[in-house]
Amino acid sequence: MSAKIIDGKEVARSIHEEVRKEAEKLRSRGIIPGLATVLVGDDPASRSYVKAKRKACEEDGIQSFHHPLPAETSQKELLTLITQLGEDPKVHGILVQLPLPAHIEENAVIRAIPPHKDVDGFHPENLGRLGLKGEEALFAPCTPAGVLELLMRAEVPVSGARAVVLGRSKIVGLPAALLLLRNDATVTICHSRTKDLPAVTKEADILIAAIGRANFVTAEMVKPGAAVIDVGVNRVEDSRKKRGYRLVGDCDFEAVAEVAGCLTPVPGGVGPMTIAMLMKNTLRAAERASPQSFDPRNHL
Amino acid sequence: MSAKIIDGKEVARSIHEEVRKEAEKLRSRGIIPGLATVLVGDDPASRSYVKAKRKACEEDGIQSFHHPLPAETSQKELLTLITQLGEDPKVHGILVQLPLPAHIEENAVIRAIPPHKDVDGFHPENLGRLGLKGEEALFAPCTPAGVLELLMRAEVPVSGARAVVLGRSKIVGLPAALLLLRNDATVTICHSRTKDLPAVTKEADILIAAIGRANFVTAEMVKPGAAVIDVGVNRVEDSRKKRGYRLVGDCDFEAVAEVAGCLTPVPGGVGPMTIAMLMKNTLRAAERASPQSFDPRNHL
Repeated sequence: MSAKIIDGKEVARSIHEEVRKEAEKLRSRGIIPGLATVLVGDDPASRSYVKAKRKACEEDGIQSFHHPLPAETSQKELLTLITQLGEDPKVHGILVQLPLPAHIEENAVIRAIPPHKDVDGFHPENLGRLGLKGEEALFAPCTPAGVLELLMRAEVPVSGARAVVLGRSKIVGLPAALLLLRNDATVTICHSRTKDLPAVTKEADILIAAIGRANFVTAEMVKPGAAVIDVGVNRVEDSRKKRGYRLVGDCDFEAVAEVAGCLTPVPGGVGPMTIAMLMKNTLRAAERASPQSFDPRNHL
Repeated sequence: MSAKIIDGKEVARSIHEEVRKEAEKLRSRGIIPGLATVLVGDDPASRSYVKAKRKACEEDGIQSFHHPLPAETSQKELLTLITQLGEDPKVHGILVQLPLPAHIEENAVIRAIPPHKDVDGFHPENLGRLGLKGEEALFAPCTPAGVLELLMRAEVPVSGARAVVLGRSKIVGLPAALLLLRNDATVTICHSRTKDLPAVTKEADILIAAIGRANFVTAEMVKPGAAVIDVGVNRVEDSRKKRGYRLVGDCDFEAVAEVAGCLTPVPGGVGPMTIAMLMKNTLRAAERASPQSFDPRNHL
């Protein structure tokens, strides 16, 4: 293995530490950063994600306001709650755990979150602002923000680099591309309709794999020395494991590690960054809500 | 010359004709499509653009409401007018001619236009929606929408094609990239920080030149057979012309025409499309404002 392995857990830990210190400063000025978490239904995965987010809040000095709602909640009831949270000065960030039950229109719910409390960064206005270099961006979605943070802390040069993003989802691929562009990379976005994909990915100095297919990126698809960030989290059967599966990324880790300059593992790469960036976004929202604490670092 | 020359004037003419027919249908149902034009100050170029837009309105059966304001107009006064226009049911589209005087913050003005009346497509929310394949996009900015329309009507295959966009401005480059992505192209965005640009542009099946530098794209930068859309409008000195200059695009036209499969001229390519798409966007806004006329073609 030649690639440097980027330790996402370690980077996430230091971000939580930074958030904790900043949250303490805010508290000493009487501002308690607050995150509302909204969970509709009782999907076990969603429940455990929300639990992890609330635990991080507690550890980082952020107050969490939890709103568990039954699966039958109507869209109207959910929108009413979001309006209330939007008006509540104690709530600086609003997180609605996705996916929502099928009878609720996800986009309508996301659009109802006031952009300045949209710590998930999914509101179209926040996505649009992300694309506009001259425009202040409020929040970048947590996972792509974590990707950029990993690149920055691993000292991977982004400006002028050729970056290829595999996948164009609204929660990872597209905002990752916009963030890389904002940081002056030459960005290519690939997807299921891309022809001769290996030729395209091989141009990348920075390759972001976010397609959700186990071991999809092979060594042949990677330019020697490239920085590879693996956003995929896929289950593959593994009878040696108690639960019957193990988690792997979108990259064939062992093989890609022979070629890449640096690489994130799965688990332990991008994963831990998502919650860390959510905490950071919530802190930013709280700081922005009290103008006297203006800090240029609040701007992406 | 081997490239087919795409006649933007002709395509624009047929779009105006389509708008005219649709506007007539709306009028027969008592709906008069209306566009408010706002011009602050007396910059001669801006004045002539607004004049051309109002003339197109008249020809296409769209009512125009012109609001010429003195250069000293305060930002607050302008925002008040925009709020009024936002509430006026006769006004379906609001166009604020840019650039604005330096004492007015352009982004604040653009954000004040209700997204459903933002026929220029510059509101961050509309830009964000453009990037979201699942999300209904309200308006695409007129010039990139014109670029796509030219590609479609010239029967250039977009899905799966490699598209390279030269330039990342919010009015052309970035939205053009999002529109191409929405139409399943593999999209690369280049800009001033891109390294080895000719190698990148030469990968393009579709090359969009939008950097504003006269004759910048040479034959060596173009893949043989590529579709090249030249968005640039640049003045170069020409003593043979009465006014002392002539207009050229971002491409070295004669040379690129030897290599490209098809190519737009300057003038007479993308230029005439911008106003045609503004009319189409205004018509769409009027149709959307009267739900009984729902037409799936209103969706991008």
